[in-house]
Amino acid sequence: MNDDAKLKSIRQRIDEIDSQLQALINERAEAAQEVARIKLSANPEAEFYRPEREAEVLRKVKARNQGPLESEEVARLFREIMSACLALEKPLNVAFLGPDGTFTQAAALKQFGHSVRTHSLNSIGDIFRDVEAGACQYGVVPVENSTEGVISHTLDSFLNSPLLISGEVTLRINHQLLSKEKELAAIQKVYSHAQSLAQCRGWLDRHLPNAERIAVNSNAEATGLAAQQSGCAAIAGDAAGEIYQLNQLASNIEDEPGNTTRFLVIGKQDVAASGRDKTTILFSTHNKAGGLHEMLSPFAEHGISMTRIESRPSRRGRWDYVFFIDVEGHKDDHNLSQALKKIEQSATQFRVLGSYPKAVL
Amino acid sequence: MNDDAKLKSIRQRIDEIDSQLQALINERAEAAQEVARIKLSANPEAEFYRPEREAEVLRKVKARNQGPLESEEVARLFREIMSACLALEKPLNVAFLGPDGTFTQAAALKQFGHSVRTHSLNSIGDIFRDVEAGACQYGVVPVENSTEGVISHTLDSFLNSPLLISGEVTLRINHQLLSKEKELAAIQKVYSHAQSLAQCRGWLDRHLPNAERIAVNSNAEATGLAAQQSGCAAIAGDAAGEIYQLNQLASNIEDEPGNTTRFLVIGKQDVAASGRDKTTILFSTHNKAGGLHEMLSPFAEHGISMTRIESRPSRRGRWDYVFFIDVEGHKDDHNLSQALKKIEQSATQFRVLGSYPKAVL
Repeated sequence: MNDDAKLKSIRQRIDEIDSQLQALINERAEAAQEVARIKLSANPEAEFYRPEREAEVLRKVKARNQGPLESEEVARLFREIMSACLALEKPLNVAFLGPDGTFTQAAALKQFGHSVRTHSLNSIGDIFRDVEAGACQYGVVPVENSTEGVISHTLDSFLNSPLLISGEVTLRINHQLLSKEKELAAIQKVYSHAQSLAQCRGWLDRHLPNAERIAVNSNAEATGLAAQQSGCAAIAGDAAGEIYQLNQLASNIEDEPGNTTRFLVIGKQDVAASGRDKTTILFSTHNKAGGLHEMLSPFAEHGISMTRIESRPSRRGRWDYVFFIDVEGHKDDHNLSQALKKIEQSATQFRVLGSYPKAVL
Repeated sequence: MNDDAKLKSIRQRIDEIDSQLQALINERAEAAQEVARIKLSANPEAEFYRPEREAEVLRKVKARNQGPLESEEVARLFREIMSACLALEKPLNVAFLGPDGTFTQAAALKQFGHSVRTHSLNSIGDIFRDVEAGACQYGVVPVENSTEGVISHTLDSFLNSPLLISGEVTLRINHQLLSKEKELAAIQKVYSHAQSLAQCRGWLDRHLPNAERIAVNSNAEATGLAAQQSGCAAIAGDAAGEIYQLNQLASNIEDEPGNTTRFLVIGKQDVAASGRDKTTILFSTHNKAGGLHEMLSPFAEHGISMTRIESRPSRRGRWDYVFFIDVEGHKDDHNLSQALKKIEQSATQFRVLGSYPKAVL
C-alpha cells in the first residue's frame, strides 16, 4: 500500500472507532437516566451528582489505563463524559470565586466538567450565601496554596455557615522557562525567586549546567528582567510570559509536582465513602496548656493520620482558637468514627465539615 | 430486584461501558499516532491538525446521533477526544485575544478542545505577529458580532499580513430572564433593550402575555432596574445576572438562535476541502461607478453564493476601498476557482485569505 492508501485505511478505522464510541457514550447516558428514574421513584428530591461514585470511576480509569494517552488525559475525558451524562438528568449550577478565567473557575471545571453552569461571584462570602440559598448546588473556593499558605477567609466562613465540604480539587501551578531568546543554548543567566530556582534545580543541572542562577524577589520581577536582557531567561508561571511576550523555551521544568493550590467544593450533601477519603473537622478546646495535644490523642489511639491542622481566632475571646483539621478516612469508617466521638466529648465546639473523596485528578 | 440491586447492576453495566470506552479512546489515539508516523516519514514538517478532517468527523457524529445525549454535546465530547489525540502527537499553541475568560478564549477552546495550550495576548495585532513569528501555530480573533457588526481591526490586519484563515467559530450569546423574584407568576414588567425584547417576543407572548414590556438603553441598564424593583424582570446575557445576584427565571428565551459572535482562526495552513466550506477573499477595484457590481458578476455567472461583503478604506487613497467577501465553497472547487480567476484579472489587488470548513459546532 502506498501512503495515501494507508492513510485512507486508518481513517476508515478511526471512523469505525468513532461510531462505536458514540454508541457507547449514548448507552452510558441511557444507563445514567435509568439510575435517575430509580432514584426519583424512591425520593423526588434525590441527588444525582455522587462525588464518591465519580471519584471511584476516575480511579478505575487511571488504574486500568494502558496508553498511549496519559492516564490524566483519559480521566479528563471521562470527567467530561460523566458531566454530559449528569447534565442530561439535571444541570448543576456551580458558583466560583470570579472573575471568569481565574484558577477557581479552572478548579470548578476540573471537578465538574464543562457541562455544568458556572456562576462567577465576587467574594467567598457570596459563594457561601448562594449555595446556602440554593441558587447553586455547589460552590468552589480556594483554601490553600502550597507557596502562599492557607486562605483564611474560606475557613472563617465555615464558622457561620451550615455548609458541608463535598470535595477537594487541586491545581498544579507549573514553572516555565521564559526568554527573549529562541534557543536554550543562548541562555547564560536564569532569574527567578530562590524557591522556584530550588524547585527546578534538577532540570537546570541537566539542561543549563553553565548558566548563572540569580535569585530575585519574585518571579514577576524575574520575567521583567529576562524581557529586557539578551542571553537571559526567567522561571515563572504560565501567565507571566504572556504579558512580556517571551518565548517559552521549556515547560513544566519543576523537579517535583509540588506547587499546588487546593480548593474545596462546598454544598449541602453528605457524601458517602469512596474508599479513599478525607474528613475535615472544626473544633475548639478549653484554653489550657496541653489542651490541644490531649484533644488530638484519640486520632493517634485509633491509628488515624492527620494531614493538616490550621488554627484561627474564634472571634469569641482573646485567646480562644478554633482548629480546622484534615484526617485520612471517612467519618463512617469504624476507627475514625470512634476517634471523632471521643474528640467531640472533650471539645467546646465540634463539627464534622465533611467527608469527601481525595482529589483524583 | 429491589432498587439497590437494580442500581448495583446498572453501575456494573456502566463500569463495563467505561472499560470499553477507554479501550476505544486509546485505540483511536494509536491510530492517530500511526497517521502521524506515515505523514512524518513523507514530510518532516507535516501538519497534524487538519481542520477539514475534524469538521468531517464532527458532522458525521452529529448526523448519526440517536441520543439521549444532544448532538451538540456528543460533538463536544468528540472535539475533546480529538484534541487529546492530537496533543499526543504535537501540542498546539493557540493565541487568543485576552484576558482569560473572554468569549475569544471560549471560541478557541470550542475550536481546538482543552488539550491545546492557549496564550492570552493583549491585541489583535499581537496575535497576528505571534502567529506570523511561529510562536503559536494558530490565533483566534473576533470578526463579527450579529448585534454590534464587524470588528474592523481584524479585517484591517489582513492587509499587512500574509496569514490565512483556516477556520471559523461561532458562539451563540443567549438571553436569560433575570429577576429578584423567584416565580415567573410574580413578573409584571420586563425591561430590556428594544432589540432583545423583539428577539424574545414569541417567548414573552407565550409565558408572560400580561407583563408590560419596557425598552431601555441597554440590557445592563435593564438588569440594574430589575435588581431594584419587585415584580420586575430583565432580559440580558448570562454575565449580567451574576453581577446583581438575580435569579434566572428562564434561560435561552430568544425565539431564534440569531445572536452570535463569529471568530476566525488564523494560521499559515492551506486547508483542504471538507465538503462544506467557505472562502474569504480580499480585493480592491478601480474607483469607478459600477466597478464593484461588474467585479462581482463572475460569482453570479458561476452560481456562487456570497454570504457577506464588507468594505474598508485601503489607506492608500481617499476614495480607495478594499473589500472582504465571503462566498460558499472551497477555492479548489471548479466553479469557484473559475470565478476567482476572472475576478483576479480585473482587480487592482486580490488575495484569497483562505478556504475553511463552515463552523460545525
